[in-house]
This record gives sequence, C-alpha cells and structure tokens, in this order.
Amino acid sequence: MCGIFGVYNNSESAKLTYLGLYALQHRGQESAGIISSNGKKFFSKLGMGQVSEIFNKDDLNYLRGSNSIGHVRYSTAGSTSLLNAQPLSIKFVGGNLAIAHNGNLCNAKKLRDKLEKEGSIFQTSSDSEVILHLLAKSKKKNIEEKIADALTKVEGAYSLLFILDKKIIAARDPYGFRPLCIGKLKKSYVVSSETCAFDIISAEYIRDIEPGEIVSFHNGKMRSIKFSQNKKRAYCIFEYIYFARPDSKVYGKSVYSIRKNLGKQLAKESDVGADCVISVPDSANVAAVGYAEQSKIPFQIGFIRNHYIGRTFIEPKQEIRDFGAKIKYNPVTETLKGKKIVVIDDSIVRGTTSRKLIRMLKHAGVKEIHHRISSPPIKCPCFYGIDTPRKSELIAANKSVEEIRKYIGVNTLHYLSIDGLVKATGMKKEDFCLACFNNCYPEKSPRKASNGKSC
Amino acid sequence: MCGIFGVYNNSESAKLTYLGLYALQHRGQESAGIISSNGKKFFSKLGMGQVSEIFNKDDLNYLRGSNSIGHVRYSTAGSTSLLNAQPLSIKFVGGNLAIAHNGNLCNAKKLRDKLEKEGSIFQTSSDSEVILHLLAKSKKKNIEEKIADALTKVEGAYSLLFILDKKIIAARDPYGFRPLCIGKLKKSYVVSSETCAFDIISAEYIRDIEPGEIVSFHNGKMRSIKFSQNKKRAYCIFEYIYFARPDSKVYGKSVYSIRKNLGKQLAKESDVGADCVISVPDSANVAAVGYAEQSKIPFQIGFIRNHYIGRTFIEPKQEIRDFGAKIKYNPVTETLKGKKIVVIDDSIVRGTTSRKLIRMLKHAGVKEIHHRISSPPIKCPCFYGIDTPRKSELIAANKSVEEIRKYIGVNTLHYLSIDGLVKATGMKKEDFCLACFNNCYPEKSPRKASNGKSC
Amino acid sequence: MCGIFGVYNNSESAKLTYLGLYALQHRGQESAGIISSNGKKFFSKLGMGQVSEIFNKDDLNYLRGSNSIGHVRYSTAGSTSLLNAQPLSIKFVGGNLAIAHNGNLCNAKKLRDKLEKEGSIFQTSSDSEVILHLLAKSKKKNIEEKIADALTKVEGAYSLLFILDKKIIAARDPYGFRPLCIGKLKKSYVVSSETCAFDIISAEYIRDIEPGEIVSFHNGKMRSIKFSQNKKRAYCIFEYIYFARPDSKVYGKSVYSIRKNLGKQLAKESDVGADCVISVPDSANVAAVGYAEQSKIPFQIGFIRNHYIGRTFIEPKQEIRDFGAKIKYNPVTETLKGKKIVVIDDSIVRGTTSRKLIRMLKHAGVKEIHHRISSPPIKCPCFYGIDTPRKSELIAANKSVEEIRKYIGVNTLHYLSIDGLVKATGMKKEDFCLACFNNCYPEKSPRKASNGKSC
Amino acid sequence: MCGIFGVYNNSESAKLTYLGLYALQHRGQESAGIISSNGKKFFSKLGMGQVSEIFNKDDLNYLRGSNSIGHVRYSTAGSTSLLNAQPLSIKFVGGNLAIAHNGNLCNAKKLRDKLEKEGSIFQTSSDSEVILHLLAKSKKKNIEEKIADALTKVEGAYSLLFILDKKIIAARDPYGFRPLCIGKLKKSYVVSSETCAFDIISAEYIRDIEPGEIVSFHNGKMRSIKFSQNKKRAYCIFEYIYFARPDSKVYGKSVYSIRKNLGKQLAKESDVGADCVISVPDSANVAAVGYAEQSKIPFQIGFIRNHYIGRTFIEPKQEIRDFGAKIKYNPVTETLKGKKIVVIDDSIVRGTTSRKLIRMLKHAGVKEIHHRISSPPIKCPCFYGIDTPRKSELIAANKSVEEIRKYIGVNTLHYLSIDGLVKATGMKKEDFCLACFNNCYPEKSPRKASNGKSC
Repeated sequence: MCGIFGVYNNSESAKLTYLGLYALQHRGQESAGIISSNGKKFFSKLGMGQVSEIFNKDDLNYLRGSNSIGHVRYSTAGSTSLLNAQPLSIKFVGGNLAIAHNGNLCNAKKLRDKLEKEGSIFQTSSDSEVILHLLAKSKKKNIEEKIADALTKVEGAYSLLFILDKKIIAARDPYGFRPLCIGKLKKSYVVSSETCAFDIISAEYIRDIEPGEIVSFHNGKMRSIKFSQNKKRAYCIFEYIYFARPDSKVYGKSVYSIRKNLGKQLAKESDVGADCVISVPDSANVAAVGYAEQSKIPFQIGFIRNHYIGRTFIEPKQEIRDFGAKIKYNPVTETLKGKKIVVIDDSIVRGTTSRKLIRMLKHAGVKEIHHRISSPPIKCPCFYGIDTPRKSELIAANKSVEEIRKYIGVNTLHYLSIDGLVKATGMKKEDFCLACFNNCYPEKSPRKASNGKSC
Repeated sequence: MCGIFGVYNNSESAKLTYLGLYALQHRGQESAGIISSNGKKFFSKLGMGQVSEIFNKDDLNYLRGSNSIGHVRYSTAGSTSLLNAQPLSIKFVGGNLAIAHNGNLCNAKKLRDKLEKEGSIFQTSSDSEVILHLLAKSKKKNIEEKIADALTKVEGAYSLLFILDKKIIAARDPYGFRPLCIGKLKKSYVVSSETCAFDIISAEYIRDIEPGEIVSFHNGKMRSIKFSQNKKRAYCIFEYIYFARPDSKVYGKSVYSIRKNLGKQLAKESDVGADCVISVPDSANVAAVGYAEQSKIPFQIGFIRNHYIGRTFIEPKQEIRDFGAKIKYNPVTETLKGKKIVVIDDSIVRGTTSRKLIRMLKHAGVKEIHHRISSPPIKCPCFYGIDTPRKSELIAANKSVEEIRKYIGVNTLHYLSIDGLVKATGMKKEDFCLACFNNCYPEKSPRKASNGKSC
Repeated sequence: MCGIFGVYNNSESAKLTYLGLYALQHRGQESAGIISSNGKKFFSKLGMGQVSEIFNKDDLNYLRGSNSIGHVRYSTAGSTSLLNAQPLSIKFVGGNLAIAHNGNLCNAKKLRDKLEKEGSIFQTSSDSEVILHLLAKSKKKNIEEKIADALTKVEGAYSLLFILDKKIIAARDPYGFRPLCIGKLKKSYVVSSETCAFDIISAEYIRDIEPGEIVSFHNGKMRSIKFSQNKKRAYCIFEYIYFARPDSKVYGKSVYSIRKNLGKQLAKESDVGADCVISVPDSANVAAVGYAEQSKIPFQIGFIRNHYIGRTFIEPKQEIRDFGAKIKYNPVTETLKGKKIVVIDDSIVRGTTSRKLIRMLKHAGVKEIHHRISSPPIKCPCFYGIDTPRKSELIAANKSVEEIRKYIGVNTLHYLSIDGLVKATGMKKEDFCLACFNNCYPEKSPRKASNGKSC
Repeated sequence: MCGIFGVYNNSESAKLTYLGLYALQHRGQESAGIISSNGKKFFSKLGMGQVSEIFNKDDLNYLRGSNSIGHVRYSTAGSTSLLNAQPLSIKFVGGNLAIAHNGNLCNAKKLRDKLEKEGSIFQTSSDSEVILHLLAKSKKKNIEEKIADALTKVEGAYSLLFILDKKIIAARDPYGFRPLCIGKLKKSYVVSSETCAFDIISAEYIRDIEPGEIVSFHNGKMRSIKFSQNKKRAYCIFEYIYFARPDSKVYGKSVYSIRKNLGKQLAKESDVGADCVISVPDSANVAAVGYAEQSKIPFQIGFIRNHYIGRTFIEPKQEIRDFGAKIKYNPVTETLKGKKIVVIDDSIVRGTTSRKLIRMLKHAGVKEIHHRISSPPIKCPCFYGIDTPRKSELIAANKSVEEIRKYIGVNTLHYLSIDGLVKATGMKKEDFCLACFNNCYPEKSPRKASNGKSC
C-alpha cells in the first residue's frame, strides 16, 4: 500500500505536500519523496523512513515551485531500498516527468519483458517504470493522450500522479481499485489518496477522480479526460476495514461510519455475553466501539500500544515470551483479570500476532476470550497493491475457522460474513473487489496465477 | 518528568535496560542514556531523541557488563542539549559512579553556591550533580552511607539510581514524590519508575522502594537502608491523572483503575445529557471510557491522533488555522456533526491547545460542547519535577472557571473537584502532594518562591 | 576527469576495488561508487565525497561477489549530486548491467535527442547513459558485439568498464584519449586508469587496453576484440603534465620521467639566473626538481600545502587577503625573503590562483619572481573530459603572454613550447591530442562548437 | 601532541579560531573543539576528526562572542573518545571557565589522588582537569592569581589557554617545554602554538609567551604576570625535528631554516656518494633538501604520498605485502631502479614503518640504500606530551645502530649526533629538553619512573 499527494498552483506546494504526506503516513512508512517543479526544473528529495525524519527545513526550501507531487511507500518484505522510493523521475522527449503510484500492475512483467526485448533499459524493478516507458514510446501528440495510450496497455490497480514541467496530471484505473480524490484550497488544486490529508491543510474535498479518468491541471485549470468506458467497479473494500484513516472519506463515504457499522454488524452476527469489549489498537478501535454500542457490552481499553517504536528493534538473546507483540502492545491487567471478554481485531493474516496477543491476555488472567474479526477470512492473495503474503502463509487459506480458533487459543472465534461486510458499507456488492475473501478477481489476467475464479 | 530504569546481575543488562527505557518513553522523549559496568569499567551511550533512534545494535553490544542504569528525559523548554542527558557519570575516590535522577531538588541552587565557594567545579547545570558532590565529600565510609549522608542534605523530589563498578543503588526521597519500584527476573533485580517496564521484559513486580529508603544491589543480594524516618507522604497525584501509563502500577495501585474512576467521578460531579463522550487522545481515553460507563452516554472516537510526528514540524507561511493542534489531531466529522458532545481532557495548562481543539470541533459542525476535565484546575507551579509553566502562564491561576469556559469557547466546563480526585484514588488525601491544585507544598523550602501556604 | 577500476575473479573484489579507487582518488573527489556482482545479483554503494569516507566495513562486506567495478568522479561545477555518481546501473534484456566511464562523448546530445524522439527515457543527464541505451537497442547477439555496435555510434573520449552478471568488459575509444591498463594478481585480472592502483594491491602491470579495443573477462579468461581500425592516436598529453600520479605508467611510459623532462626542457627554453627554484605543490614538484637539476639552481620548498582541507571552507566576513589560496598554501618566508626565485607551476587556467600565490610570495619579501609553466598556454576548451572553463575564462585565450605576466605580477613569465612539450615525452606529436594548446581537434564533431581547425 | 589557538576581541572570533585550528591541524587530528564567550554565556562545539569535518557554517554562527579558544588533539592509542576532546569546560565560583592544554603534567596522578580523597569529582581522565580543580580551590582573589596559584602546584609541560566570561588567559610552564606565541590582528590579540596559524588570518607575530608567564587579555588590553622565576629552559627540540610546520617560527626561530640545517649537518656527519637523495614525505622533505644542497647529490622524489587517507582503512584478508605503509606511500620506481640512493627520514621510533618502506624501495629495484636520520636515536620516553611508546618498544632503546641497520635492511644507517642537532639550531644545548635522546630529564619528578639521570 502507498499514499500519494499532489499540489497544483500554490507558492508553497512542497510544504503542503509534506503535510499531506504526513497525514497519509499510515499508508506507508518505508520511504517518502517529494518532487516539485518551478516550471523549468525539477527539485527532488527522497528518503528512507518517515516523512518527519526525511524532510528538514532546508529540503522544503530547496523544493521550489508551485507544483509538487509526493509519495509514501509501505514496507514490503525484502526490498527496503531507496531505489524503490517514489516519485520516480525521468527525462524524456517531453522534458522532465515523474510519477507517484498507488497500486499494482498485473501485467507489468509481460510488458517489461517485451520492452526489454525491444531495447528498453530499466533503472528500477518497479512496475511504475513500465508506465513511463509506454508513455514515452506513445506516438500520441500531447502528454494526456500519451498517458491515456499507455494506461490502456496496463492492467491492474493504479491511482497515479504525474508531474511535468508545468502540469500535474492524476489518473485512476478503470476499476477504481484504489481511492484518489480532488480538493481545493483557494486557487490551488490538491489531489490525495484520502481526504484526511485535505483537513490538515484546510483544503476542501471536491470529488473523487473517477475510475478510468485522467484529470490534468494546467494553465490554472482542471480538465477531465475519460480514457476507459469500463462500467465495472472494483473498489478495494480493505480501505474500509483497515487501510484508510477513520477520519477520511473514501469512495465518497465516511470510513468511521462504515467501520463502526462493521463492528455493529459483527455484534449482530456473533453476539456473546461478556464483561467487556476490547480492541487490538489502534486499527480495530472503531469497530470495537461499534460492537460495544450494538451489544451493550462496555468498551474497555485492553491493550496499551507503544507508539515510540523505531524501524528495527534489538531483541535480547534472553528469551522474552512473545517479544514481537510485546514491543507494540501491553495488556492492562486490571481491565482483564478474571473477566470474560470480547476481543475485536480487523483481520487475521498469518495468525502469529493474534496468537501472541491472545497469549498475553491469558497471561494477564483473562477467563474467557471471544475473538471477533471485523472482516471475513482472508483466503487469497491481493494482486492490486496490498502486501498480503503468499497463499501458503494465509492462515484462512489453509485452516478452517475452528482450526484457527484452536491455533490462536480462544474460546470462540467469529469472522464477519461477506454479506454482512457489504451490508455495513451500504454499497453494492458488485462495486467491490472482494477477491481476497472470495477468490473472484475482477480482471482476467491475475487469475491464472492464483487459480482464481472468473466472477 | 523523567524515567529511570536499572538492571542488576544480568548478562544482557544493557539490552534489558534499553527495553525498559523504551517502555518508559512516555516519561521523556528529549534524550536517553544507558551506562553499564562490567565490574571494572563503565560503558556509556547517551543521545538526543527517542530510545529507538539513539541505540543501535553496535551500541548495545558495546554496553558490556551485567549491571546497567538508564534514563529518559523530558524536553524542558530551552535546554535541549546532550549536556543535560543522563545518566551523569563521574570518577571519585570510590572509582566510577553515575546517577540517573527523576525529580527536582528544591535547595540545589543554595547547595551549589556553597559548594562552588568551597572550590567545587561543575560540569552541568543539573541539580543531580549536586548530589554527586555531596556524596564525594561525605566522610562516611561506605558508599551507601555516603549516599544517605548526601541525601539528608538535599530537599525536594528524587527517585535515584546509582551505578558503581560492582553495585546498583536505588533511593527515593522521604516524601515519595516520584514512584520507583523493584522487580525480579530470575536471579536479576530490576528497578523502574513504572511497572509497565517490567512487563516488556517479563519481570515480576516485587514492591516499591519506600520513601526514605536506599536499596543496594551487591554480591547478588538486595539490602535495604532507611535514611529518613519521615512519615509524611507526598505522592505526586499527577502520575494517576496523566503521567504514568495506564497499564502500570504506581504507588502500588493500578493506574487504569484509578484513571477510569476519575472519569466516573467526573460524570457523577457534572453529568449532562449528550449524544456521545469523546476524549482528547490518548491521555484522556481511559477517563473518557469511565465517564461513558458512569453516564451511560456512548463513547465515540472524536479525534484521530497522528503518531508519526517528529521532533520539529515545518509550518508553511500560508496560514493554516490551528496548525499546531492539527499536526496532532483531526476530528472525525462523521461522529460529531450536529451532535451534543462531552469532551474529556485530563487537564488544562495554558488553555491554548484546548481552545484550538474546541475550534476544530466547532468547525466540524458540533452543536454543543460540554468540556470535562479529569483533574482540578492547575493553579500553582510544581517544584518537584513536572515541567509546568510559570504561574503567569497557568490559565487557572489567572482566570475563573467561567472565564476559562469563555476563552476556550465551550457550552459548559467542569473540572473534577479535589475531593473527588482523591476519592477516585481510594487513598488518603494527606498522602498526596496536591500543591499544583491547592498551593500546599509539603516542604518548607519551595514555599517562599511561590508564596505557597504552609500546609 | 574520472578514474575507473575493476577486478575480475577475486573473492575480495570489492575490497580490492576500494583500494584501487583510493589510489586513483586524485582523479576525482566528488563522488565514488562500487558495484559488485556475485553472478546473479548486483550489490551497489555510491556516495558523495572521498573513498575513505564513503565506504565502511559493512559496505565492503555487503559488496559480495568476485567481480567489481568502481568509479571516482571529479567535481564539475554545479552538478554535485549523487545522481551523477557512477557506476550507473540498469536492467536490460541481458540482465543486470552497469557502466563506469572516464571521458566525454562529443555527440551525446545529438544521440540523446534521437533516442528520446524514439521513446527512450533517461534517468540521468550523463552522456554515459546514451551508451547503455544504444547497447540495449543493438540487434547484435552477444554483449561484446552489442557494446561494439554501440561504440561505433558514439564519438569522443571513453575509457569504459562494464559489469554484467558474470563478466567484466573494458573498452577504450579508437583514439585512446584516456588511459586504461590491465594488470594481473595471481588468477585475477584488474583494470585501472593508472598503474599506481596496481601497486597498492601488489598487482602486476600487463599492458594497456588498445585504442579501439574491447577486452572481455569471462570464464576465467581475457578475450580481445578490435571494434575500430582507426590508426590515428590522440592521447591526452595533460595526463603527463598534471593528471596522472608521478608513480604511474601512462600510455606505457613513466609519468615521473616525462614530468621531470618537462622541467628540464623548460629550463633549457627559459633559463634565468636565480637563488632557488620552488614549485607550486604538489602538482609541479616533479617538474621543479627537473628544472633545478637542469639549471643547477637549488630546489627549495617555497610553499607549505595544507592537506587537511575539507569540501567547503567557511570564510570569515572579515576580509582575509587571498583567502582561497591561503587555505591551501602558505609561503615559507625564510626560503624566500630578499631572494630571486624561479616558481614552477604546471599550468595557468584562469590566472586567478596564480595571481594570489604570486601576491603571497611578494608579501613574504621575494625580490624577483620568474614564473615558469611546464605546459604551453591553454587556449581552447577540452571536449574530451577535462573540466576546463569556457574559452572566455581561459586567460591564455584572451591575453598575450606579456599581458598575463603583468596580470599575475611577475618579473618574467615563460611557458613550455608545444614542441618542447612533445620532445620531453619522447613520443610522436601526431599521437597526442594537443587541442587545448593548438585548437586542432582530432575528430570532426567538436570543431564546430569551438571553431577549431581541421588538423 | 596538541595545538591550541585563541582569539581575543574580534567579532568573528570563532571563525578565526576555526582557521587557526585548521592551520594547526598537523598537531592533532583526533578531535577538535572551540568554545566562545559573548561575555555572559559560553558556546561550545567539540567533535571527533578533523577541523574541516567537525565545524559547519551553522556551528560557526552558533559560536557567538568576541572571544574564543580552540584545541586540536592528537590521537593517543586507545583513548579516542569525545570525552577527551578539549577545550574542557566547567562552571565554578567565578562563573564559566574552559581550558585548552598542550603538554603533559608529570604529577597529575598524585594531585588527582589527593583531590579525590578530599571529595573532588572528575568528569574526565585528563590531567588538564586537575588544573581546573586546583584553580577553583585556590583562596586567591582574582582569576590570574588563582591560575598562578594552581600552576605552582603542577609539574611538567603546559602551554595553556583559558577562557572566562570576559577574558582570555594564556600561560606557559616555567621550562617552556611547548611553544606558545602572541599575534596581533588590528585591535584583536591572537595566541597560537605556532606562527603558521597567524599567517592564514593575516595576523602579525608579536612575541612568544615567556616560560613561567601568564598573559591575561581583558578590557581590550594584554597584561603580563610572571609566576615563576625559573631560569632553566627545556624547549622540546622535536618541534624543530618533526612537529612544527616548516613555515612556522618556533621559540622565535624559523623551523624551515633549522630543519634544513639538520639535513646539511647530517650530510656533513655522514656523507656518502649516491645517485640521488630522497625523503620520506612530507616530514623529511626539508631535511632532504638540506642534505642534497650540502652533499651536491641531486634531490629526487622517491615516494608519492597519498593524502586522501581516512581515519580507518579496511584491509583485505588477501595478504598485501607492507599494507600499512602502502596505504600512505608508493615508490616512484623510475627514480629508483638500479640506483644508489640516500633516504632521509626525521626519526625512527619502533622501526616497523621504516622497515616496510625500505622493503618497498628494494622491491622497486634500488641497488644500494643509505639511510640517514635527521635526529639522534630516541632512547627514552617523553613525559611532556609527545606520544612516544614505552621504552620496550623504542627500537633505539633496545638495539645498537648496527642492529637497527640490519633490522631495517639498509646498506648504511647514520643518525644525526646530539651535538650536531644542537649546532644546527644555533641555540644553546642547555636550553633544550633532550631527554628522549640522552635520558636527562629537566625536572626531578619524572625521573624515577624512567630511571632517568639527574642532569
């Protein structure tokens, strides 16, 4: 997962982009970058780590010009290198160009092999570079057409920001896998993965970039181009479950409301008498509040989360039980001892962390643990930009709910149903990508790899 | 405020101290340090910033020896320099010695002037260095007696850890202003400001260091010496209100339980019908949960707190309304729009942040705001180690509650009563220092400076 | 100017490359980089500054594999950025590939424009990237042929090292502008800009790479391919005058011997009675020793050079006379006061530093100054990789020798004649590029830009 | 060895001190520091490494005030830590105070033990801190008298600079072991270990601080106090042989002239027919020029020295012959092959480096090597601040000249005689400390330790 943010036509574009990225930091903490343009030249700063560590005052003053785009990147296993940081900048026949990409292309490998055979050279292993090559090779005349031309060749998920010497261009894939929205700040336009980044700079939310739409900001104006007539939507429902910040609007709806509904729906589907409801903070907090409200069981704070965590943590040789989980969470023994509790989490991926957390709760003296998950079992990998592990590591792809319950060690375990999930959003089932739950991939291409069904 | 942590008799003493300091990080993020001893030599690493940034693997391997003490320091205005980082290390007639200090001495200036007149030289402006001079000048024979001798001369608040070539010594002032507790990990002893640091390393809480007690760890054993017969206690009640982590035991009692009681008591004292209760996260979360439980008004998440904040934040010239507060908090418009809400905070110091937060809530469309504070008005400065501003900057020292209400801009404002506060703790009023609320300072010395009453 | 170094087939290839680059440090101090290959994967470390600052032990251990190439880069005005550091690494149809380049292509702009029009994208503004594009686009089958194919399209100066997954390939342009030589270390091959880098690792000099030759190291063997039948040579004579280290062999001959001959020849051409001969250290030391030997005037040390200089120097506002020169040189007043002296320098570019040095000598009390330059006047820019300023800034392009003498402020000024220069080398005039002295450029392409003669 | 530099009464005192330290960098590269005073407050920056690395523009702007002192420190084995960096700063009854010290106290251990027994605490293991304690404990009224009082208690070598809130004070021990001189720059005074630091800032040399003199700079004036009537001088003669820069005046005389005389005297004492004279650069260059002049044998450059060396150098596992020496020096084979040569070095300490250098010369094909040392054999350790190894490691303390000749592997070996050395200086033998050559220590105290004679 990644977050992207851009500012068009503002004398402090880089500083606003910096604040926007800071608000999108939950979408990626591995690396961040900003590229600005003063109409003639690009200014660039990329670094490893968090936004507040990477950019200092000198950097932000150096990033001159009234247009900027930025990117925060999620840590995907193994490839933690500055080379993968974005925006990715090149020079081509049209001058300077940089791209910031949230999502994942499904036919990147195929396209890349073809390009290499034709003599193209690549500086990164990123799929985003493929888009740049296609665009540079396009015979179309203007840049918006070149982009449209390139995007018709790629498959998969992409919410994109391009910066050129004098333009900012945003684009979203025909299915709308990832969110992307437009805001306004006086005479400036801003584009962001989520609306929470508008709030920090007091910008106003205008609308979403439509699936299959290119929006070009140039000469002070915003211009829309439809490059796909695809009517099928495939919004990633995990934005509502986990990714997006609760104070954001995503796909035009409040994340907080929907996430609370998930908790309520979960209570309806799997209520159980208990002394209190606790959440695995912070991602399950809103669902837990919803669960508590619906079930009338009091909400309590069961874990204290340590936010002072750094990028690496040094473990003593001396064996510390459940070390990894302890670095982040500590149970509040007082709330828990001798109690029958409901523990809300947003999802279970491998199951290892859940198991450690449950063990910590038991060690704190909890009598009965009823585990409730505000999403259905994750059974299939995501090919659209979420860093899920391989199928073999997904616990729900390999174990039944009862087996998972035993593995984690709880008294009862309930997942939210797929229908309950959709119902909680108030939207239509066919507008979502639910492939990680039901193996129905919206496009043809990734299916083969995963033996997914055609849906 | 600071946090201290020590490990005696463990082959990985520095690594455990590092984890302990990490768990105490909320007590100070300005600087941190660890000094270890291998019986002959000291190893030291101090740095600015957070524990996870300062210490890397090489540092922790360098910090050899089975005894270590560490310190995290709170940022007090102006003096952000490595010189003030602790532990503070010296050489004296007894060999190597270092000190880690939580608290503040009230007669440090007077003692220092006297020492300087006698020819002493100082390397820091820290009051902790005075203790080292007194101790080095003591004619007593062994180090424990030297420490006792020195401590009878100083006034004020101190929870201390000393490390010598082969010993760790802990001490707590006769009033017990600041917490300090002992834990056990197999054959090792650990000492910590709070018990949450025991949990992370799976150590077991044994007991508090008593006010007026010196505890010496040497030859594998723990030995207690009483250096004061003072019976009066003056526990800082702010540990329960704000400082300590909810998952800690402080003065032998669960912080979570008491903090929830504060919220309940607040609801009893100042209930008001409302659509929901929200907290200023994270410090007021537990009190808000208590308030909600007592008042039966549903608890909601009203603000999303951004934890990715760095040490400095670069503000654009472009005016962003309530910038300082926005960097940290964003209101969840959905929860709030058109609602009548209760907002819980733990305290109001200057009132400026509260005012910004309330303005953000109004901008989000809240209809009615009832502000509830889980502590009494702070009217007097602290001389015992809490970094409160001067009296002239304390809003409650200069305005009535009604004036504060108008300044902040809320419909109603209620503070918890002093008696309600004490009641919520289940302890005796005379065992607490309540000077910041009632101007009754437990010792004679600091009174003159503040025109405090003799209580 | 740059330096390149490569090691083939050695278990410590990166460490040896590090030492080689250290020995070639005089050829570039702006940035340095090493890329190694373990047969499957590339390992890379590039940084700004000097070799000894950039690489630490961890870096050298990280740079695994038995093949490595490295590069040191000279600071050219303005473009001091890590983006320009080499080796430059890409992925193409043949796998991983990186290039290290010493020299400058004359038709890079034209080739690049053409490539961009065809849809190529560029990551740097470096001319070396053009070679990579041409090579990737070549329809030839194997990599050596692809390289040959690409090199027939480029004009100008290039001594090159390529690394592939399992190969190292070296190449030199058909004129042989820049040096490049092969050494042997047991079963390993090494390639270096100068032989002084062989000495530090105890490798043995074998021979030069021939102009127009590609040498491929693969399967433990070295294989030569001639890609040009050009017979004309255009060795850069400035390697003998200034660039190369005196302890190196360049174009098969000892730099020390030739540089000393320059001094001797200079004495023959322009002898003058004097008390002593001094040099501008360290570049003119050898010529000065030659001059002294020939003229029988005693050699003295006239300037002490400060080698502790860093990358930037902070100048006080308070005006310090000749600050820039003083940071580097201080005259030894004792050697100079009241004397008639000969001052040897290797060249005069802008004349500003010379003027400052002469002013320092006068201030030290020198009676008469006879300035002797061990090269002819530099009248034309270099298009082959030496960072000379534009013609308008070259003092000898704009002033007569007599005018320069007056500007610098010396009693007499003599430059070495072109014929004397060539004579001192013992080689044929037609084998050198002397364009910076006589405006005769060996190739057609760069002439237009400079109004150079066809020679 | 160390270097000290101070500026009194200049609005850019820190920047000038920075330049002064840069010019004194040859006296110490381990650490450097500057402390400035604006009349009320001290500003301080200390760091590991070289001056140009430690101080950036922000640092120099931060170092406010018109008075500054600075220090560069030589790396002595093992204790490379920032704790030992100077100036060393304290607070005492007189306010702020810092000291910069060149030299070594002989009775520091004894004084320190006494002070610790009386209850003093120390922050460093440095002997300089003892002076601060003595001074702070002095009952004298003003600071100059306190300093005089303290200095009468210490024995050994010290050239000192003190900074107070509004004063700079310089002092030199009664024997004058280490140099210290006064310069003037318009209305400002400067104090430096060597005059070369005056040249860089265009200051004028006034006079040396006398042995046993305190010079106080206050209220715009310079005031002299004699604190010792000792008439015996003990100037360190090694300043002329090795330490000082040739362009400095030391003890009022040109280092260049005397060092050249050493070479001439050496030629007189031990001439031998040869093809050329070479030096071990750069320290023996001047003596070699003198030797060549006297002997009429031509001076040649035999070794190229690499100045790009960093603080640590990573050695490959692969055995490289004479690695340590090769990092620094490479022989110019051309000058040397088949020749009979004289090699000048300034001294032989352990003999290991000499042996490696000679081996490199032989490997380069030298026929005959005649080694000439421009100082007598070093037989005894220095107690006055030069970092000589223990007696057991001094080759001349344990081997005869003939044995050393064989160990190093040269055809002949001659050291300069003690009388020749003194003669070359033109000064009186009794004014020098020659203890490292003749075991005659000027003071009583250090003798016992070394079994030195009373002279």
